[in-house]
Amino acid sequence: MGVARSPRTRVRRAPQKARYDEATVHAIIDAVVFCHVGTVLGDTGDVVVLPFLSARDGDVVYLHGSRSNRLLRALLDAERVCATFTSFDGLRVARTGFHSSVAYRSVVAYGPVHEVTEPADRARALDALVEATLPGRTGEIRQPNATELALTTVVALTIEEASAKVSVGPTEDADEDVTSPVWAGDVPCAVVYGAPEGATDGAP
Amino acid sequence: MGVARSPRTRVRRAPQKARYDEATVHAIIDAVVFCHVGTVLGDTGDVVVLPFLSARDGDVVYLHGSRSNRLLRALLDAERVCATFTSFDGLRVARTGFHSSVAYRSVVAYGPVHEVTEPADRARALDALVEATLPGRTGEIRQPNATELALTTVVALTIEEASAKVSVGPTEDADEDVTSPVWAGDVPCAVVYGAPEGATDGAP
Repeated sequence: MGVARSPRTRVRRAPQKARYDEATVHAIIDAVVFCHVGTVLGDTGDVVVLPFLSARDGDVVYLHGSRSNRLLRALLDAERVCATFTSFDGLRVARTGFHSSVAYRSVVAYGPVHEVTEPADRARALDALVEATLPGRTGEIRQPNATELALTTVVALTIEEASAKVSVGPTEDADEDVTSPVWAGDVPCAVVYGAPEGATDGAP
Repeated sequence: MGVARSPRTRVRRAPQKARYDEATVHAIIDAVVFCHVGTVLGDTGDVVVLPFLSARDGDVVYLHGSRSNRLLRALLDAERVCATFTSFDGLRVARTGFHSSVAYRSVVAYGPVHEVTEPADRARALDALVEATLPGRTGEIRQPNATELALTTVVALTIEEASAKVSVGPTEDADEDVTSPVWAGDVPCAVVYGAPEGATDGAP
């Protein structure tokens, strides 16, 4: 079981929003397209945070990028990295700024990373990365060729510790503000896809 | 001018997607609700990445949280922090996994942080944080009271270096794949708000 509560991931602030169960953690990771991975760059000591597409397979989160991506190389040098997954789910509009907030679900996960080098594992990871945004797509397209595989680094983050935070409504104000005439309530939001536009590079 | 190209923020990968102009950087920061801020926790040396609501005022990005938030305290101890803003804008569906990608806009920004303590500056920052998700709202609600202010830490990140990356369509495949019969093209996406649900805590 990769999702373990630990001193590193224990939620200190607003512990009533904390979740440590694997199902919740996994569902949030699966719902988020971009995770944000932080590490220290060896040459400068700077912390860098970059967005990565991710795909989860059990307790492993796959990331990928160009073979020459310096952040992927820095990740592979790190003993442990932090990956954070945040889903923006709505506005919690209270009658005061102080009690207003945002509905969200987030996961902070820690674990070691390694490069995925075994060909079958790489194929499985790359398929998972395609399926993460477009389920079923790998059944329609050809497999990566040798050149494409050579240009791609696949990294596996094994989740050893994680915590989730879930902020949902209903919005609540302090007693002295409840009678304020201003509107209050919750406004959900979600990522919605628009009309597809076909590629033109195959046009006759 | 806070947005400067620097060795730290120069985009190495896919430099054709790089943008360094202030207008592009600011527009992306303004479009994103959650930024992801990375820093090193002093007690363990671990990198931690956490989501924060943000509001921009010129070259300053305001963050806020509870007075007892340990990450905000860690940020204030850091010489410089990294804040990353990512907008997921769509799917770029090519005929191959290799050429498929995601439409996005992102900014990686670095700068020093300081706590905002002067009352007028704090009021301005907290108003900006309310307006960031609900423009006009500060004209409808009361100002924070002394207790609420005492419970809130406001942090200002001054952007000294930043770079943006913009990935947009149209999707393009390699010549040998263009004749593949599989659908290819671009699918836009955006955060869309649903029907508001009024608060019930003021119900008689």
